[in-house]
This record gives sequence, C-alpha cells and structure tokens, in this order.
Amino acid sequence: MCQLFALSCNVPSAVTFSFTGLSARGGQTGEHADGYGLAFHDERRCRLFIDEGRACDAALAGFLRQHPIRARTVLAHIRKATQGPVQLSNCHPFLREWQGRHWSFCHNGDLKDFHPRLSGSHLPIGETDSERAFCWMLQELRRRFRSSRPTGWAQLAPVIAELAERIGRHGVFNFLLSDGEAVYAHASTRLFWLQRAHPFPTAHLVDHDIALDLSVANGPDDRMVLVATEPLTRNEAWRPFAEGELKVFVAGELVWQHVPQAVMKAGVVRDEASRTTLAMSA
Amino acid sequence: MCQLFALSCNVPSAVTFSFTGLSARGGQTGEHADGYGLAFHDERRCRLFIDEGRACDAALAGFLRQHPIRARTVLAHIRKATQGPVQLSNCHPFLREWQGRHWSFCHNGDLKDFHPRLSGSHLPIGETDSERAFCWMLQELRRRFRSSRPTGWAQLAPVIAELAERIGRHGVFNFLLSDGEAVYAHASTRLFWLQRAHPFPTAHLVDHDIALDLSVANGPDDRMVLVATEPLTRNEAWRPFAEGELKVFVAGELVWQHVPQAVMKAGVVRDEASRTTLAMSA
Repeated sequence: MCQLFALSCNVPSAVTFSFTGLSARGGQTGEHADGYGLAFHDERRCRLFIDEGRACDAALAGFLRQHPIRARTVLAHIRKATQGPVQLSNCHPFLREWQGRHWSFCHNGDLKDFHPRLSGSHLPIGETDSERAFCWMLQELRRRFRSSRPTGWAQLAPVIAELAERIGRHGVFNFLLSDGEAVYAHASTRLFWLQRAHPFPTAHLVDHDIALDLSVANGPDDRMVLVATEPLTRNEAWRPFAEGELKVFVAGELVWQHVPQAVMKAGVVRDEASRTTLAMSA
Repeated sequence: MCQLFALSCNVPSAVTFSFTGLSARGGQTGEHADGYGLAFHDERRCRLFIDEGRACDAALAGFLRQHPIRARTVLAHIRKATQGPVQLSNCHPFLREWQGRHWSFCHNGDLKDFHPRLSGSHLPIGETDSERAFCWMLQELRRRFRSSRPTGWAQLAPVIAELAERIGRHGVFNFLLSDGEAVYAHASTRLFWLQRAHPFPTAHLVDHDIALDLSVANGPDDRMVLVATEPLTRNEAWRPFAEGELKVFVAGELVWQHVPQAVMKAGVVRDEASRTTLAMSA
C-alpha cells in the first residue's frame, strides 16, 4: 500500500524535512517505489508535482527536498501500486477544480468492485480505484452543494464523512482530501496525526539519522498539524486515528472529527478525543 | 504582453533547448518577469509546473532547463501581467479536466469587458481574463459535446474557432489550448509556427548564443511543430499566423486551419496555406 502525508499550517511552511523522511520510503527504507506526488496549496492555486520514478532518488524529488516551497496546506503520496499500472496518470495526488478552488486527493488502500455511475462532471484520467473514488466524491458534493461559491468545511465535513463510509464498504479507504483551506483525513485502517506548536522541539526522523530544531524555523504563534500513514519522527507524540474516523484540520488546528457509531459501539476507538463529533473551533 | 510556446510531436520529446531560449525572455532578454509555467502532456496525464518567479533565474526554471521531461505535447507561458496581480493563481497554463482528459490553456493578450455567465462546470481560481476565457470555452464545449468519451479534434476545431472569434471581439486573444492529443493555436495579432522533420538542422537560439544539432536527438521519422509568440531560433523558417487564424496540430502535423472570412476578404492573410479551411490529414 501507499504512504500518505498531509500538513496543515496557519502560516506558509516548508515540508523539506518531512519529505526527506517520507521520500526515503519510496524505494530506500520502504518498498513504495511506484511514483510519488506533492500538492502545495497556497493563494487558492495548487502546485502539483507528480512523477512515476522512485521518491528516494528521482531528480524532481531531490529538487523538492532541496528547495522549500512554502504553503499552508500540503498533501503528499508515495505509491505502491495495487490497481492501475506504474505510470504518470495513476500517480497521486489527483487534482480537480470545484467551486473555483483546487481540490487534491490521495489514497492508501484498495477498493473492490467500486464502479460508481459517473455523470461526467468529474471523470478519471487514469485507471485507479482512487481517482474513481475522488471523482465520485466531488460529483456527490457538487450535487448537494450547488453554489458557485466555496462551501465551508463545517457544511462539507458531515457529507464527506458519509461518502467516506459508503466508499469504505468496498475496501481499505485511508485518504487525504483538501481544497487548500481544510484537510479532510479519513482512516479506514491506519493513519496518525501530530500537532506542533510553541515550544517547538528538535525532531528526529524515523527514516534518516537527521534531526531538525523546529524552533529555528517556527515562531511562537505558528501552529501545524501533520498526518501520516506511519509516524515520520520518533520523538513526538503521534496519535492514531480510530478506524473509520474522519478528522478535519484547518490552519494547524483540529476543527471537526467523527467516528461511525458502529465502530464506537464495538469498542475499537483507541483515542479518547475522537469521541467528540461536534465542531470544536473555527 | 506574454510569450507563448507550444510543441506538438509524434514521439515524446524534450523542450530543454527551446525553454532555454524562451525563459531568457522572463527577465533577461525580455521584460516578461511576472511568472511562468509549463504543461507537459503525455500518457493522458498532464504535469504542470507554475511559478510566480522570473523564468530566467528561478530555481524551478533552472531545474526544467537541466532535466528533460519528455512529452508529445508541451505548452509554455512567460507572463507579463496585464490583468490580475503577480501571484501563483494567475500564472498560466491553466489546467482543467473534461471528458477524462486534462486540458491546458495559456493566453497572450488583454480582453476588455469579458465577463461571461459561468454556470459552474468550470470556474476560475485566479483573477485573469485569460482563465475566465478558458473556463467559458470549456463550458461551451461541454454544453455542445455531452459525451463522457473524448470528442475528436475534427469535431472540436470548428467550434473552438467560433468561440475564439467571439471572445476575440473583446480584445487581443492569442492562445494555445491542448488536451494532450491536439494543440489548438489561435492568433489574434501575433503567432509563429515551424515544422521540423528530417533532415534536422543545427538550430541557433535568438535569445542565447547557443546552437543545437537537432539531428543528434531526433530520428528520421520524428516530426514536430513549434509555435511561439516570437521565433525562438534565427536560422529556421518560422511562418506567421494570419490574423484571426486557428491552426490545429496533432503529432507534429498541421491538420486543420481556419481564417475568418472577414479577414480573408480584407486581404490580410499573409500565409497562402492558411486559406485552406478543410481538414488536411489525421
């Protein structure tokens, strides 16, 4: 399966340190060598970098480790192909426009028999179950929210949770979705998150013998959330998502979360905080 | 105004040489220093690189000059801002999906009082007249061709010519549009094109004292068309578009062209071949 990563910040931030750890999993410390991609959202526009090479040693990945691109929201993906051949059109994140915003999406998992009826408003370009799921989610959101102006995360979150649950019946559906304002992160089986704020520690990567004093680059008011399939640093308090949980992050804060009732009743909620299903703060 | 560039080839080709000349116009030999972008279409997916920096010395532009990305169709743009501030969301090319294909678009010109009614199928993310025109064109194409499968260039070309003429009434509208299969190039005031085939010459850039023996990288069956606002090389036979002309290029061949009747009657057609308005070859 694949490696997911997201960053949500209240100020434009670089991901060169995190991507140095993540990209090692693309052929060096991990077997996810079938392409990679990063989506940097800032100023409404999204800059997408995708490549079918190995993230650990491809030239473009090296450029992105060396040249910080600052953005408030970043999604990244390291691919281990399950459906669709190793080619550019199957690399995540996928990108579409809806309501005058760029939406990016990446997926870790494998959906069986998922062939929803697509009306044509958003159609897949490649051959993955992931892109089909993304297009169907956007189609359903467009059907329910007909405004040309952006709908806020508070209205979108419960609908995205419902759509995630429906698609999740077809298999493993860990995903990250963003319009640049909010990051919607859904764990079907495995996802971790971490909030960083003042005082910032010195972080040690799991995949490299590299440490970074985060207090140098970040000010006292800076705040950020990181989401990843596996913790990227070994000395910070990464917390697991509950199975089936959707969390929404805006400007480095957790603002909404939801765990399906069935999962809560079965007692598989591992994180106390995830029982809160109401909006917490804007 | 801006600098446009397109490449259409029958085999995946690099644009490092052409982009070396073009990017010099982004702040060095030209004043177009308000951002740049390249769209590489191959395997249905499109890789888009945009940056609000100067193409002549930005780090990403340097990477793209040094690392060939091979594609059958490439669009590039060097921006001199007329409408919309210098920021990422206003950098060309713009990218959207329609019929399961990526469409890219870039524009040189300035449209006055162009505020078409946009239904929501494709909406601008930035603030340029250019992106509005692109969204409206895709909206009109979507309205006329309702299939979920890609419509061929032979059907699209006359409609795109009609839309270009309508938008062109609002001002200067030189543009490049592509779905990765065909390049639709429209000249409102100024655009040149060049076909390269065996025997390939040694080409000398206009903007740098650099020459390249094109026979080294290209085989006897390779064929390509280049389109640019100003010729990029000084020893090849660049031909001007007629005013108002739309030409369509597929796999390095001119396959369709059209000049509005009014322009032909006024005797401003400068290129004999452009009188042919029928499809020439697939």
